[in-house]
Amino acid sequence: MKKVLIYLSMEKYASPFDLIEAYDSDVSDLVVVPYTGVDVDDVPGLINDTIFPRHPKDLVNTAVFIGGHDVVKGDEMMDKAVEQMFDPFKISIVADTDGSNTTATGTVVKIKEAIEKKGESLKGKKAIIFAGTGPVGLRIGALLVKEGAKVAVTSRGIDRAMAAIEKVKKVYHAELTPYEVRSDEATLNALKDFQPNIVVTTGPPKICIVKREIWEQFDCIEVMADVNAYPPYGVEDVDANDNNVEIKGTGKLGVGALRIGTVKNDVQKKIVAKLFEKKGQVIGLEDIYEAAFE
Amino acid sequence: MKKVLIYLSMEKYASPFDLIEAYDSDVSDLVVVPYTGVDVDDVPGLINDTIFPRHPKDLVNTAVFIGGHDVVKGDEMMDKAVEQMFDPFKISIVADTDGSNTTATGTVVKIKEAIEKKGESLKGKKAIIFAGTGPVGLRIGALLVKEGAKVAVTSRGIDRAMAAIEKVKKVYHAELTPYEVRSDEATLNALKDFQPNIVVTTGPPKICIVKREIWEQFDCIEVMADVNAYPPYGVEDVDANDNNVEIKGTGKLGVGALRIGTVKNDVQKKIVAKLFEKKGQVIGLEDIYEAAFE
Amino acid sequence: MKKVLIYLSMEKYASPFDLIEAYDSDVSDLVVVPYTGVDVDDVPGLINDTIFPRHPKDLVNTAVFIGGHDVVKGDEMMDKAVEQMFDPFKISIVADTDGSNTTATGTVVKIKEAIEKKGESLKGKKAIIFAGTGPVGLRIGALLVKEGAKVAVTSRGIDRAMAAIEKVKKVYHAELTPYEVRSDEATLNALKDFQPNIVVTTGPPKICIVKREIWEQFDCIEVMADVNAYPPYGVEDVDANDNNVEIKGTGKLGVGALRIGTVKNDVQKKIVAKLFEKKGQVIGLEDIYEAAFE
Repeated sequence: MKKVLIYLSMEKYASPFDLIEAYDSDVSDLVVVPYTGVDVDDVPGLINDTIFPRHPKDLVNTAVFIGGHDVVKGDEMMDKAVEQMFDPFKISIVADTDGSNTTATGTVVKIKEAIEKKGESLKGKKAIIFAGTGPVGLRIGALLVKEGAKVAVTSRGIDRAMAAIEKVKKVYHAELTPYEVRSDEATLNALKDFQPNIVVTTGPPKICIVKREIWEQFDCIEVMADVNAYPPYGVEDVDANDNNVEIKGTGKLGVGALRIGTVKNDVQKKIVAKLFEKKGQVIGLEDIYEAAFE
Repeated sequence: MKKVLIYLSMEKYASPFDLIEAYDSDVSDLVVVPYTGVDVDDVPGLINDTIFPRHPKDLVNTAVFIGGHDVVKGDEMMDKAVEQMFDPFKISIVADTDGSNTTATGTVVKIKEAIEKKGESLKGKKAIIFAGTGPVGLRIGALLVKEGAKVAVTSRGIDRAMAAIEKVKKVYHAELTPYEVRSDEATLNALKDFQPNIVVTTGPPKICIVKREIWEQFDCIEVMADVNAYPPYGVEDVDANDNNVEIKGTGKLGVGALRIGTVKNDVQKKIVAKLFEKKGQVIGLEDIYEAAFE
Repeated sequence: MKKVLIYLSMEKYASPFDLIEAYDSDVSDLVVVPYTGVDVDDVPGLINDTIFPRHPKDLVNTAVFIGGHDVVKGDEMMDKAVEQMFDPFKISIVADTDGSNTTATGTVVKIKEAIEKKGESLKGKKAIIFAGTGPVGLRIGALLVKEGAKVAVTSRGIDRAMAAIEKVKKVYHAELTPYEVRSDEATLNALKDFQPNIVVTTGPPKICIVKREIWEQFDCIEVMADVNAYPPYGVEDVDANDNNVEIKGTGKLGVGALRIGTVKNDVQKKIVAKLFEKKGQVIGLEDIYEAAFE
């Protein structure tokens, strides 16, 4: 029996990225069927038509992956889909809109690796995520909290930061500390105030967020990670290719977007495989993070 | 050489149901290529592009399945597609819009099974199909007539019933008797007048059409079948899961939507397989019904 | 690892023709993923998402095929796609919008075959392509020039012919001679003036362009080829099925659309296979023509 992955996206096109990663996963006899331009209201009908053709005992071979860029809509689609299933017609489902879950996972996996390389643990460490109130930043925050770190996020507007923090508290039961940062001065002040061991930047491509002249003032910083793949990078002198190497002469380790991306891609394949391991799984951020270590 | 199934639908989305059933059919090396939002006018071009890439001798490996909900449009698409083919560029084609052919088949297969369970035959039996002028009801009527039964259909409007009957006569060469039924009283009268052995309901989900207090007045009724999968069911006390079991203490057998659905799903897979057995088949309702017994 | 062919088309539907030819190519583990309604502006995002999921060393297993009818848009999409790739993230790509490259190849392959059948070579031959300023005609011209022939094209308007010739000069570095032809008289005059050995017609279906009473006046004509598959054919008395056979009693060989089509289909499969032989190939008309002889 073929494994059928129903791929739902709110975008005009199914991401070739997601489809290729699915085909590259370790799932034999896989067929990916893309549905695009999907509205939340389309979901119940599509799910009905997905759960009913097969005998419930065979539903381990059917799964849903929600892609596309719109994280809010993706979450609504996920909720709607889960709501539509009932015993024994339950299939496994995951959402990774905007690659947010897998990118957050990739980032925290690399940070953890860096910290452990130094013979230490994330437990009790302090991490600050600059431009961190987007989907990726918040998920990084949630995972770091889960690992025992104390986490701050910065945003250009304090209101946005507060709202984001509320959301993370509600969804992931993780407490974050907000900072409003929209200038180098504010960056400096946030670092002075929070005294982080870990600096993460999750800003847009081609924008440097934390300059070297700023970060090199802080002995407390041990690891810096950046998810921006296009120079100028988010942390000055952390290259997209840096793989937890020392930023020369600083004692600090840096990890760049391409190395995080390698883990992200690997995890994405793993969760596609995971979808077909057991029926009825609702695979969330923490499951994805755990899958990275399997 | 791969088997290629061109799936045409007038809907926004290709039904995951149809695609999964196709992949679950016993056809190896199958690729299903969905085309959606298909207008009747799109059909000639799509068929041209489907019949020409392969050598005529290889066209047994190419077929068309017309899905979606709009039965009228589906039939027009089917006609247009058949019209576009010519010797030796003929491929096999089937339409099962709204699942009407396979659901009708599933229903009649189960009714026949029930009747034969009692050591009898459909020949000469009388069947009435309530809310029976939709695509599924009419096809059930046609198949029952083919099996030698005398068949009546009811509709909320006699005009609609008459028109439907004309259509069935023209397309399937089967004569049906019309009743206008839009109240319990009319239901009772129709049953009194027609004295059926078989009662079928093909109404919308969640609407009870024939109440127990009505049907239990008729000793002539032997079998009752309902295609509505969501309670309240079409025939009171015939559950969606009933599999030609006696409705307690009545001597009557009942079959519900889920059991009919099992046959429907099975038949749908069989006709996908049938498409690739021989080139140039135009697979209609009666072929689908016959396939159920293969 | 699966071979993934990203199929981009500006049309409403992915051509079943192209998809089936791809699946019939000698590429194992192939998945074709169609994207339709693609605008030039959609291309960079789609290419990004296509080149990044796999490790550069694996990109031999990912390729792009541009189909659809709009040759101008197809070329723009091709340019945009190539522009978006960079070392080492380069995948192979080909455009065959309107089947123009493969049909031109099929035509010239058959003409060459006919000429060589007579123990001669295309080198130094003169060929005239009637209604030859469309994508297929111009590509035939370019290939014939590459084979050493002197080539003329006719158009209903001299301006159109001149513009087309400029384009061919720029893109394929081939010089063509223009004729304005919109009547039998002009056809006769063009033939008298150019004294061709080869006559090709690339006009619309069901229109005879060169009548027998005209072409039989010219002893210089050795081969006549026509790409119109629906009678009346482009060259009177050259049937769509003619396979470089003598047009009875004339000493001239004729080749029709279906025989050209056979080569076209074969070449199309070959170029799909070629896409997956090496990464980063930009497969153009001449590569396609060469592939025909491999």
